[in-house]
Parts: sequence; C-alpha cells; structure tokens
Amino acid sequence: AQEEFFEGIPKIPYRPDAGPADVMCFKHYNAEEVLMGRKMEDWLRFSVCYWHTFCGTGADPFGFPTFHRPWNEGTPLESAKKRLRAAFEFFTKLDVKYYTFHDRNEIKQAQSAFSCRDMAPEGSTLEESNRNLDELTDLALQLQSQTGVKVLWVTCNLFAHQRYMNGAATNPDCHVVAFAAAQVKKGLDIAKKLDAENFVFWGGREGFLSIHNTDVAAELRHMANFFKMAVRYKEKIGLKCQFLIEPKPKEPCKHQYDYDAMSVIGFLKHYGLDSHFKLNIEPNHTTLAGHSYEHDIVTASAFGMLGSVDSNTGSPDLGWDTDQFPMDIRNTTLVMKAIVEQGGLQPGGLNFDAKVRRESTDLEDLFIAHIGAMDAFAREGSEMLFASLRTGSSLERYSSFSHGIGQKVEDGSATLEEMEMWTFLGIASFTYLYKKSNTVLSLAHRE
Amino acid sequence: AQEEFFEGIPKIPYRPDAGPADVMCFKHYNAEEVLMGRKMEDWLRFSVCYWHTFCGTGADPFGFPTFHRPWNEGTPLESAKKRLRAAFEFFTKLDVKYYTFHDRNEIKQAQSAFSCRDMAPEGSTLEESNRNLDELTDLALQLQSQTGVKVLWVTCNLFAHQRYMNGAATNPDCHVVAFAAAQVKKGLDIAKKLDAENFVFWGGREGFLSIHNTDVAAELRHMANFFKMAVRYKEKIGLKCQFLIEPKPKEPCKHQYDYDAMSVIGFLKHYGLDSHFKLNIEPNHTTLAGHSYEHDIVTASAFGMLGSVDSNTGSPDLGWDTDQFPMDIRNTTLVMKAIVEQGGLQPGGLNFDAKVRRESTDLEDLFIAHIGAMDAFAREGSEMLFASLRTGSSLERYSSFSHGIGQKVEDGSATLEEMEMWTFLGIASFTYLYKKSNTVLSLAHRE
Amino acid sequence: AQEEFFEGIPKIPYRPDAGPADVMCFKHYNAEEVLMGRKMEDWLRFSVCYWHTFCGTGADPFGFPTFHRPWNEGTPLESAKKRLRAAFEFFTKLDVKYYTFHDRNEIKQAQSAFSCRDMAPEGSTLEESNRNLDELTDLALQLQSQTGVKVLWVTCNLFAHQRYMNGAATNPDCHVVAFAAAQVKKGLDIAKKLDAENFVFWGGREGFLSIHNTDVAAELRHMANFFKMAVRYKEKIGLKCQFLIEPKPKEPCKHQYDYDAMSVIGFLKHYGLDSHFKLNIEPNHTTLAGHSYEHDIVTASAFGMLGSVDSNTGSPDLGWDTDQFPMDIRNTTLVMKAIVEQGGLQPGGLNFDAKVRRESTDLEDLFIAHIGAMDAFAREGSEMLFASLRTGSSLERYSSFSHGIGQKVEDGSATLEEMEMWTFLGIASFTYLYKKSNTVLSLAHRE
Amino acid sequence: AQEEFFEGIPKIPYRPDAGPADVMCFKHYNAEEVLMGRKMEDWLRFSVCYWHTFCGTGADPFGFPTFHRPWNEGTPLESAKKRLRAAFEFFTKLDVKYYTFHDRNEIKQAQSAFSCRDMAPEGSTLEESNRNLDELTDLALQLQSQTGVKVLWVTCNLFAHQRYMNGAATNPDCHVVAFAAAQVKKGLDIAKKLDAENFVFWGGREGFLSIHNTDVAAELRHMANFFKMAVRYKEKIGLKCQFLIEPKPKEPCKHQYDYDAMSVIGFLKHYGLDSHFKLNIEPNHTTLAGHSYEHDIVTASAFGMLGSVDSNTGSPDLGWDTDQFPMDIRNTTLVMKAIVEQGGLQPGGLNFDAKVRRESTDLEDLFIAHIGAMDAFAREGSEMLFASLRTGSSLERYSSFSHGIGQKVEDGSATLEEMEMWTFLGIASFTYLYKKSNTVLSLAHRE
Repeated sequence: AQEEFFEGIPKIPYRPDAGPADVMCFKHYNAEEVLMGRKMEDWLRFSVCYWHTFCGTGADPFGFPTFHRPWNEGTPLESAKKRLRAAFEFFTKLDVKYYTFHDRNEIKQAQSAFSCRDMAPEGSTLEESNRNLDELTDLALQLQSQTGVKVLWVTCNLFAHQRYMNGAATNPDCHVVAFAAAQVKKGLDIAKKLDAENFVFWGGREGFLSIHNTDVAAELRHMANFFKMAVRYKEKIGLKCQFLIEPKPKEPCKHQYDYDAMSVIGFLKHYGLDSHFKLNIEPNHTTLAGHSYEHDIVTASAFGMLGSVDSNTGSPDLGWDTDQFPMDIRNTTLVMKAIVEQGGLQPGGLNFDAKVRRESTDLEDLFIAHIGAMDAFAREGSEMLFASLRTGSSLERYSSFSHGIGQKVEDGSATLEEMEMWTFLGIASFTYLYKKSNTVLSLAHRE
Repeated sequence: AQEEFFEGIPKIPYRPDAGPADVMCFKHYNAEEVLMGRKMEDWLRFSVCYWHTFCGTGADPFGFPTFHRPWNEGTPLESAKKRLRAAFEFFTKLDVKYYTFHDRNEIKQAQSAFSCRDMAPEGSTLEESNRNLDELTDLALQLQSQTGVKVLWVTCNLFAHQRYMNGAATNPDCHVVAFAAAQVKKGLDIAKKLDAENFVFWGGREGFLSIHNTDVAAELRHMANFFKMAVRYKEKIGLKCQFLIEPKPKEPCKHQYDYDAMSVIGFLKHYGLDSHFKLNIEPNHTTLAGHSYEHDIVTASAFGMLGSVDSNTGSPDLGWDTDQFPMDIRNTTLVMKAIVEQGGLQPGGLNFDAKVRRESTDLEDLFIAHIGAMDAFAREGSEMLFASLRTGSSLERYSSFSHGIGQKVEDGSATLEEMEMWTFLGIASFTYLYKKSNTVLSLAHRE
Repeated sequence: AQEEFFEGIPKIPYRPDAGPADVMCFKHYNAEEVLMGRKMEDWLRFSVCYWHTFCGTGADPFGFPTFHRPWNEGTPLESAKKRLRAAFEFFTKLDVKYYTFHDRNEIKQAQSAFSCRDMAPEGSTLEESNRNLDELTDLALQLQSQTGVKVLWVTCNLFAHQRYMNGAATNPDCHVVAFAAAQVKKGLDIAKKLDAENFVFWGGREGFLSIHNTDVAAELRHMANFFKMAVRYKEKIGLKCQFLIEPKPKEPCKHQYDYDAMSVIGFLKHYGLDSHFKLNIEPNHTTLAGHSYEHDIVTASAFGMLGSVDSNTGSPDLGWDTDQFPMDIRNTTLVMKAIVEQGGLQPGGLNFDAKVRRESTDLEDLFIAHIGAMDAFAREGSEMLFASLRTGSSLERYSSFSHGIGQKVEDGSATLEEMEMWTFLGIASFTYLYKKSNTVLSLAHRE
Repeated sequence: AQEEFFEGIPKIPYRPDAGPADVMCFKHYNAEEVLMGRKMEDWLRFSVCYWHTFCGTGADPFGFPTFHRPWNEGTPLESAKKRLRAAFEFFTKLDVKYYTFHDRNEIKQAQSAFSCRDMAPEGSTLEESNRNLDELTDLALQLQSQTGVKVLWVTCNLFAHQRYMNGAATNPDCHVVAFAAAQVKKGLDIAKKLDAENFVFWGGREGFLSIHNTDVAAELRHMANFFKMAVRYKEKIGLKCQFLIEPKPKEPCKHQYDYDAMSVIGFLKHYGLDSHFKLNIEPNHTTLAGHSYEHDIVTASAFGMLGSVDSNTGSPDLGWDTDQFPMDIRNTTLVMKAIVEQGGLQPGGLNFDAKVRRESTDLEDLFIAHIGAMDAFAREGSEMLFASLRTGSSLERYSSFSHGIGQKVEDGSATLEEMEMWTFLGIASFTYLYKKSNTVLSLAHRE
C-alpha cells in the first residue's frame, strides 16, 4: 500500500451550508457547476505550485526553517520522489487538475535551508542534473496518468545557483548564457514529455544592480536572441505549449528587465517576438511595481497578451514578494472580470503561486489556504453574469462613437480638420457626457 | 523705453571662483566651453518652462496664492503680454536659448487662483481662444526674432477645463474628442508659426478612475487614432518638429495610460506609431511610477526613443509631483551619461519643468533656482569624458560576446543545441565572470 | 416657505430588501436597531463634514472647478448662509446627527476656486472675520436647535492663508503665532457657543520643507506651548469638549510634526499634555504614512488615545490625500473591531472627511456616497458580536500568562534570573505554542 | 605565526592625493585630524559589524551562497574562532576602534546557508549555547586587549530560531518569553565581560502578522515588563553601558512594534522607561518606514533620544532592507549635522550595519566598501564648521522669539487672550517673515 502523507484528510467536499468554523470544505467552489456555458473548473483552471507548497521550509531572510514535512526523508532523490507522491495526493484530495514546477534545486539546500526550488535535485554536472530530472519526471508522468492531473506550466530555475548571480540570458559572460540555454533545452524536452500546456520564463536575475557597469541595450538584445533560440527549438521538436513571460519589477535584482506587463509587451514587439509569447501575470509582482492589484491583468488583456495568472496577493504596506493566498473578493472579482471579458484563460490558468505563513506549520494549513482562495474566486462565479452586464452598460457610455464623427474616430478615418469643423458647428448644441461615479459607487455599495 | 521686470538683475555672469554666498552667477556652466567637440550649451540645450516660472501663483491644494508678480496687471490679454515680455527678459538675462509653453489658460483663473496654464487666455468660444493665441504668438514671434530665443516645444492644455474631466482623446463622448482635436490642430499651426523644434503630448486626463466603467481597449484605440490624425496633419502642413509623448503614471488621474516609458513604447509599437514619436521623460514622473530616478531615461534611450527631458526632481518620500529643480549631482550625472552615450538630445533639450517653492516669493529666487540647476548639470560637464571611458570599461565585461559562441548569441545565429553542446564540452574550463561591485563602489567613492 | 436645495429627495428610508440599482436607501444601516445594548446610531455616531460636501468645487491641482451648486449665489455672506441651510437639509434627509466644520475661508476663493474651507468668509481684518463667524454661527445655532443636529467638532483653518505658509504655531515669526492664537481663541468661543463635543487641531503647515533652515526642537516647543495656552483658555471659559489632534505625515508640508499616531503620542507625553488630548485618526493619512489602513486606529486605541475617526479611505497606489468614501468592508470591519473593543467612540464619532469625485457632478451623488459608506459600516453592525467573540478566542492564545511565571511577566514582578532558572528547569517539557494562521485564514474565508 | 586572512593587504593608509583608481586608501578620513576640538575618529566613532562582514554568505531569498571565506573551515567552534581572528585582523588594518555583534547563530546554518548571525554557534541546549559563547568571548577579550579594539554594542539574536517565530518578549507563550529573558541575561553578562559601551535591543519578531489574533495592548505591556527586567538586572550587576532600542517598521514581521523613532519614544514614555533607553537609528529602516533618510535621526535628536547610528543606506525604490554602505554625501552630511549639533554621539557610534553585494565576492571588497563609506563621512568632516554656522543663521529666523510676546511663547507664559490683544494691536504694522528657500537652494548649489 502506498504511503499516505495527509492522513485523515479526505477528498474535500462541497458543502455550501457549512458554518464558519468548518474550514475543510468548499462553500462556493463547485467544480461541475455550469456558468455561462462552461463548468466552473474550466473557467477557473486552478493549479497548485510545487515550490511553495511542497518545497517551502518556512525560512525567511531573518529566520531559520519552521516546517517539518513527512516527505523530507532519505537521500535527495528519495526525498524528491516522496515529495512528488505527496503532491499528487494533495492535488487529488483538493480536486485540482493542474500543477506547475521548476526543473531543479540544489542538493545541499534541499536538506537544510529555505525554499529549495524545485522538482529534481541539481547534480554536480549538467548530465547528472538532467538524469535526476529524467528520473523524477518519469514518476511524474506515471502519476499524471494515474490521476489525470496535468502540467499547467514548467519553468527553469535560472536564478538560484551562484553561476546566475549576474543573470542567465543577460549574463555578461557568454558561458553562463550557454549553460542557461542548455538548461532551457532540457526544460523544453521535459515540457513535451509531460505534455505541459505552457512554459514560463521568469528572469529573476535578468536585470541590473547598477547601470554604471551595465550595457542595457546589449543585454536586452542577448535576451531577445535567447528567446528566439527557444522559439526555434520549440518548433523543431513540435512542442505545442504556449510560451509565457512572467514580469516582476525587482527582487532579487534592484531592477529587472521584465518590469511589468507593458515593459514585456514593448520588448516583445521591439524584437518581433510578440506572436510567440504571452504573459503570466502575478498580481503580487504588479503591486511591487507600484501598480494597483489588477493593473497588469487589465493591461495585458487589453493588448491581447494575457496568457495566465499566478493568483496570489501581497500586502500594500510591504515592499517585497509575500506570495499570500488571495482572499480579498474585491481582487478576485477584478481578475474574473478580465478573464470573462476575454473569454477565458485557456490554455493558461489560475496558478496558486502562494505560500502558507511560516507560523502555519500544520499540514492541514496547506488545504485550508487553497480552499479559502478557491472559494474566494468561486464566490464571484455566480457574479460573472453581472460582470458581463457591466460591460454592456459600460459600452453605453461610448455610444457617441457608433455613428457620425465618433464612428470616424473609431475606424481611424477622421482628420483634425473635420474634427475642428465639427467643433465649430456643433459646440453650442451638446453637453458633455460626464463620467458618473454613480456606477462606481453603486458597485461598491453592492459589494 | 521698455518696462523692466527684473530690475537690478544683470545678465548672469560666469564666475568660477565665486564663493558660496554668491548665488547670482554661474560657477560651472560656461555656455561657450567646448567639450568633446561640442559647446556646453549644445550638449545641454537648456529650456525655461513658461507655466511654472511665469504663471505660477504659489497656491497648493491646501493654500491660497503667495506670489505677487509685477506682470499680473491689467486685463487678461494685457497681463498675458506683460508676462511674455517678462519671460523674454528672463531668458536673455539667464542666457537660455529655449522655452516651452502650453497653448492656453482660463481667464478667471489667471487673476486669482493656482497655476494658470499658460500663454494665452482661453476665450468663451474656440474662435476667441484661437484669436487670443494668435495675438500672443505674434508677440512671441517678434520677441523670438529680437532675442534669438527659440521654442523647444509647444503643448496643448487638454486637462484643465471641465470639458476634459473624463479625458480628451480618450473621452467617452466623441464631441469632447473633437474639441481636443481642434485644439491640437491650432497647436500644430502655432508650432509651425513659431518654428518649434518639438511638440509634446501629455495626456493628463487620458486614463481612468475606475475600470468598472471603462473600456480600456476602446480608449487606447481612440488615443492611437487621435495621434494618427495629428501625424497626418503635421505632414500635410509640412511641420518639421519632432513629436513627443510625456509619460506620467497618475495624478491627476488615478491611472494614466502613458504610465511610463515602456508603457508608451509598447503602445506606440502596437499601433504602428513608433516611427513618428519619441519620448519626453520627466524624472519626477518616473519616480512617481515607483522607478529609480534614471529608469525611464535609461530605458527610453536603450530602445532608441529618448527625445527630450523635463529636467526636474521630486522627493523620494513624497507621492505627488513636486517639480523641484534638480540639484543632486548623482542624478544629473546619470542623465548626462545617457545623453552623452546616445550622442546628444537634439532636437530635444533639458527643459526645467520645475517651480520655486511657494515660500520662495522673491523674483530673484527664479534666477537662483535656474542657476543652481544649470550648474548641477554643468558640474558634470567636465566629467563627460569620464562617462565615455566608463562605457569603455563596461564593454570589457562583455568581451566574451565578441567571438565564438558569444558572437553567435550576439548576432542571433546560435541554437539551443549548440549552446548545450558547448556547455557539455566547456563546463570544466571556465570560471564565471562575476559582476564586481568594485566599479560601483569606486565610482561612488569618487563622488 | 424655505428654499429646498435637494428637491425631489425625501428622507432616506431603510429598505433592507432593495435591489442593487436602488441606491437612494439604506440596506444595512438602521439607526434605531439595538446591538450589544446600544442603538446602531450610538455605536456609529456618523458625522458629515462641511468643507468637502458643501464647499467642494471639484477643482484639483490640474483642473478647474466642475461642480455647480445652487447655494453658491449672492454675496459671500448670503452664499455662506444658503450653504448652511442646504447642509442642514442634507443632514436631516440623511438622518445624520453630527457635523464638523472649519472656522473660515477666503472670500475671493469662495467664488471661483477650489475647496473654500469653510463656514464663514474671511474678512479683511480679524475683527471682520470674527463678525462673519458670529453671524454664521448664530444661524447654525438656530438650525441646530430646529433639527437636533449637533457639532461633532470644530477646527480652525490655520493653513490656507498665505500668512501661514511657514506654519501657524510653529511659524518662525511670533506675530504669525499670535494671529493663530487669536483665531483659536475665537474658535474655542464658537465651540462653546455651539456646544461642540470635540475640538480638532490639524497642523497642516506645522512641519518643514528643509531641515537646513529649521530648528526642530524650538518649533516643537512652541507648538507645545501653543497647545498649553489652548488648554488654559478652554478651562477658563468652562468649555467641556474633548481636544483632539489629527495626525498627517505630509501634504501640504514635506514633513509634518504630527506625522502619525505614535508621533503625536510621544510628543504629548514628552510635554505633559497627554491627559488633555486624544487623537482624531484619518485612515487616509495613515496610509500616506506608509502604514496599513488600520494601523493608527489600532495603535491609538492600544495606548488609550483613540478619540475620534475621520472615516475615509485613499487608494494604496496613490501618494496623496484622496479623501474617498470608505466602501471596503475589510476596512470598516477593522475600524469597528477597534471601536467595539474599546467600548465605543463617544464623545468622538465617525466623521466622513470624504468627497465625491470631481466627475460626480450631480447633487444626488452626495447622498449616494454617504449612504454607501454608512451601509459599509452598518453591514458589519451585525458582526460586532462576532468581533467580540474573536477577542475571546484571541485571549486564549495568551493563556500561559494567567498563572505562574507568565503571571509574573504580566504583573511586572518577574526577574531575568527567575526567567533563566525557569528556562533551565522547564526547557524539556514544553512545546512552543505557534501562532496559527488558521484563524486568519478562516476569517478571510468567512469574508 | 598567526594565520593571515587578508594577505597582501596592509594597514590602510591616508593618501589625500590618490587618484580615482586607487581604492585601497583613505582620501578624506584622517583619524588623528582635529576638528572643532576633537579628533576625527572621536567625532565619527566608526564600528564594523560582525554579522554582515564576517558571517555573510551572499545568499538571498532567491539565491544560494556566493561567498567563499577562508575562515569557514573546521568544526563550528573552530570556524567561529578563525572568523573572530579574521575580524580583528580586519579592524586593525582598517584602523577602526569598535565592533558590534550578536550573541549566537545556528550550527547547521553556519555551514551552508545565509547570514549565520553571529559570534558563537548555538548549542542544542541553552547551557551549551552559553558555553560556546563563553569560549568565544574569552578569545574576543584577549584580542580586544591585544589590539585596543572595543565593543560598541552587543545584541541578542531573538529572531532567527523557530522558537521566536511568534515573537520573543511579545510571544503569546510565556515559556518563549522566559527563554528570551535567559538569553538576554547571558547577553548582559557578556556585555559586562567585554566592557561593551552599549547594548542594543532589536525586536525583529516583536510585532504581528494579523491583528485578528493579536492583543496589541497585552503584548506591549509584556515588552515593557521585559525591558524593566533587563534594566533591573543591568543595575544589579553594575553594568554601565547605554541601553538602546533599534526601530524597524517591518521585515521580517508585517508590522513591528518599534516601528520608528517616535513609536519607540512614545512607548518608552508611556511605560516610564525613557530615562533608561536611547535609540539606535538605522536609516535604511527609516526609509522603509516611509520617512526621508534623516527623519529618525533628526527626530530622535530633537527629543534628546539619539544614542547611536547604524550607518547604512537602502535604495528609495526597493522595499526591503538592503543594508548598503552609505556613499551619498547628501545623506552623510545630514547625519553629521545632527551629530555635531547635539555635541557628538558618544557612547554611541557610527556602526556599519552594511554588507557588500553578493556579486562582490572578493575579500578585498570588504575593505573597499568600508573605506568608501568612511571617506563619505569624513569628506564632510571639514564641513562641520559650516554646519554649525548654518545653525547660527537658522536661529536668526527665529529672532522674534527673543523678546516681547515671542519670548512669552518661548517660555510658555503667554495666553490666548494676550496673543489676541497683541494681534488686534499689531496687525497693521508687521509683514510676515517668509521662509526663504534661498538658503535651501544655495546649500544645494554649494553641494
């Protein structure tokens, strides 16, 4: 019989009438419920992340580990396999259909220190690391097949090892760039093997500490060429997944090139890469960039570039990445509004790149956190219709663009001369249509 | 004899040996001095802004006006002309060759309240406003001709009047868009008349308060079409000036579309406008966006889009636009580094979009502030050579990209397979070239 | 018959079953409903502010006025009286029992410009200003008597006039300090006349722009002495109201002395003033100080110094005072938790120092905004019981302090030696009681 | 012969004429030079911190260690001793007279992971930890005696071990409070043994994650009682050093009680502890609190509570503690101004709580960093006289407080009635003394 890691915890039931004290059930999320022609699980496409939930240790920059997990036993490889089995038990009990992971971690760190990112232990050579990854992903493939759980996305850890301290694709030493390229090649092979639906690039060290010793233009060009290599190899091996870039403004870098959604969109368009990539937006990164929670999701969607969401949250008063579970329905509603308006996130999803607090040391807390966040999104499930209605009433505000000079502005055929003539003629006869905050107030009111 | 507004103040001399108490002379800025083959005034291309320096009242959101200026007398038109004469007296005494201005202000406000932006009083109709602007620019043209002072850029005030409270180019009512278009048409005519070297678009109300009632994609499209009309009209009338967009993240809007350099670059490329526009970067806006002081200047320059600079500064601990004069040589050095590395700013310049504090009520303070800022830039004039040397030593860090696999990364011909093979072969033989902070430290040391 | 300003708007009814589109009724706030032995209106003690709601113009630093109010007609004094009648009509229709106001404004500004703060027009001499204030407060007294509406607090505007540009109590010129003192004397007389329950000091210009020309210690001492004069005069005239200081970190100053709750508490204790003052906390100021929304309310309450609340909100991504109506139930719940735990706010209250957006130009919007905010607080009315239960379970976490060494820590009698001995003896026998985030999660879950 | 760790590096010379490329010498700092009657080293009282400089590993939350130090060899105790010898070699070569340290670290972490704070390895029991500390401090005492280097301050690490994850003095479990007390008792004994001039309390975990499960008032009371125990024990053993509290707003906590200078001052006064403690201000913490760099230093000094300074800096655009070496002369000047105006920092000092960047992997970098910072302070050494002159001219601004009604404000004897009478009489005869920014501008100009 297979080892059970989350003993005493059954498959999480849907019990809409449960009281506040009952935290091990869904009160709002009902996977099979159909909304606007689609099952709730298909609108939401939840995913569990591997690094925080199964590799997290509770360490922080001022404190040592606090979590004691039953799967952290044996040699690095044995422990890695136990961890993977525990993860699939978790996915199944939570009834989440997707997971996400990094390719590797560092052996020594896996035993003692903070977040050991991620699936397979890093070997002392690239070959050994690759062998470890092959062995682990063989097991992952088998567990995927048994459970029906799928990979939402894979990513390569190009930031933790000291070789990457000055960047991976943008390293001033081309040998490091080459190593990173070899690692990405393997990552793409693994994505194909596991049938991942997306592949994420997060450039945690692609940026600078000081512009005094940095040739920004050269580093951006190298990064673009790095991405082009990945696109060519993806096409060569027939990998079908969506490529995603995940913006973050800073941390660990003082400044990261993929600062926010528009930084990445401008970069991709400048280098002719915009048809090959979309964005994986993490709202905690968005707020670190000084934006409102929903800013990058709204912006990426408006430019047709929203691919997936790392659904987490920070605290507005904290200046680093806290990766908390999203529980604020104002925020989850804004995310769902953007998703519904663009017709869904597929092949992307809502990946919980979030961790329990280091004081939440019980295994059960991992469930409670995910359930709370899933319910926060699902609460607004029934509100999606409302969201679409709002879109309707919003369009009414723009009704003057459906005819006459407005239509010419809309289709791009108007000229300044016409606009001026129209103004001279029409100035007396119209009153300005003011943006009424009423709608804002009544919405807030409703909430 | 012509009225003198700054009585007792002569043309500001260059006196490198003056003591700290002597504030009415340049100690570093020597317009005619040649550096790297160009006169200092041609590297720096300073410009005085009209709105803060001649229209500012000292009012703030919690306080009434504090400045009493000798040119604020008579009818709005009389006062506007006195102001213009005072301005040219100031330009001449300061020996600055450029100025910048908005097209209009509101009559009532000009007499009593806060910043009355700007050259000509707004009439009760578009025709009257245009007539006022014609009359004032006739005088400006005459003064330009007498003094040799030129227009660095013109811009249209599309944000102060209540008609623009929901935006100009992005207003949900096409009638307002039309009025804005008519105003821009006149602005372009004026730019041609005064031979302006640039024309700036600042979209202070192009953004949103709430996404609940905003169709972001539609508004962006309208803004793009608005710019296209301006481009077509510019070409039609044979206006040669450079078009510039000035990013700002917020204030007065909760969120402005032209958030920062990369937001504008992404927008321009998305709508095929990037060959027609460059950016006018204001560092105080950059820091409001959560970036470091130099961020948008460096970024815009790296993408070939840095057109001009509104040289001012904010305070890192204040969350609104304070438009202070730049006095910190760390900052002015970083600006000059970017400018020298891209070969200069022409046809753009360093425009002092900055105001004296409301407690600095003396006329003389206007001189002291400009002199201090000009000297802050000029202090680093002699350091430009150093800046270029730094570029040299910076390139050394990237030397591995000049041959072999590095060169293939540089020119885009490398593949992941080659990179992997190279890594398998070469892994044992190289040591990582670490980013040394030494250079950073020694630079700081030097300062 | 008396002029009606809000025509067609009846007394706002309580209609718990109203739909989302029905915004002119209370759905949660039911003034007479009794919770924990007290009427809802007595727990909440709502107050309308005079300056934003009746004096606001819609102007902002980049835009001219947008509001056209029916009471802005006639001479300054006539208009001031119409405004006062309109205000009492509003209080009555909204069924709010308290209002707050500043003593004066500037005549010219009242006609044309931005927020003209506040009840009576400023005259050209102190005598004339005082006469205006007498005349207006005669009318206020009569209206109070007719309606039963009371003054929650009065405050003196010591920041808008140019004489205060370098501070009032902390001005480097003692003549300005004297003028401010005279104004406060009159303010205290008025407070007595109108039977105000509190008197607020907000030191908008008590701070500095630059420490280079500021003697911080001297200015703090002057401010303390200024407060001591006010205390003595209050006692002399037998004024019973509570004195309150309202912290704000900055804006308009670069730095204000009453930065936040703890800055004021430290100041009051240092100068022996802490028994004479409590704090009026405005959460929008709290967030401008970099704190979380609830920080100063929680802190002031923990030190026994929470006197009243200016219930508004800012936006976490904006760096200035936006004075929005509080609509987020997370925030209103946290405020109510602190209030219930300290047994209520009396003689303070929840004053809506908040304004409708400048795009909300309709008179009706003033009602909608207040109703929404009042409902946001009242929604949590029924949750107060829950809040008190939470306090209970929170205490359980601290149970080890109710006996043994814990009790000695609690009552202050333990010594390091005992603690060490106890540790040597007891180390083996206890497991650490970890802060479980479960409670946090389950609360969020519940919301 | 004793092992040399910094081979090839001599005692750092003073060479005022050295060029920019020569980074291993002082160009401004000349320890023996006398300024205003005191040696430069006595004004500046520099101190090296043990944790960053000798225990730092280069790890960050997203990256593994990058530093390879020659003293990290052997068993934990052997390595700890090598480290201590290396430190004293460093102090001597740099000619710094003070150092600061934490009491302990965790054994396992010392070998592999991030910042292992600090002098002695933590044992598996309190007794073993204490024995380790005794052994290490025996060596420290001997090295102090040989070199003349002294302890500026000791502090106890009450934040890294998992037992402290919910706080030390404010832990909800009194057993953890007891353990912390035992650790502080030992720390005080060590302070006496090593003749430390100060003892610092930094409450890194004394705060909260969520107010929902926190009794703030109880925790503050426990913290106050904890400090009182320390005061009593200090007096009992005849320890003469100054007690210091080091404020920090957050990180690792979401919210720390010792938020900033005024939070601590208010707390100390509330609990009657203000005569026993002063503050150790770290500007990087100040800016994390949203203040300007100099804010807490100026504030603490104005209230007579500035005890010592952790001289480092952050980046205004980063939201976490980066502990960089201070290189910006604007900042170092502001610090020196406050120090000179209060007559010096003794028995406190300028402690470099700062670390080299993780990319600065060379041993030499430790010297370069310290030299750069020491020179940044010393550059302003010759400016101290200027600073005192500034104070003079600043007082001139307040001259109206030296006689008449101003003097009565100054000495606290004025009344509102007198002030009013004075205003009625005098209003016509004075003009307001405006705060001139000239002084600000000319200062900036000078820089």
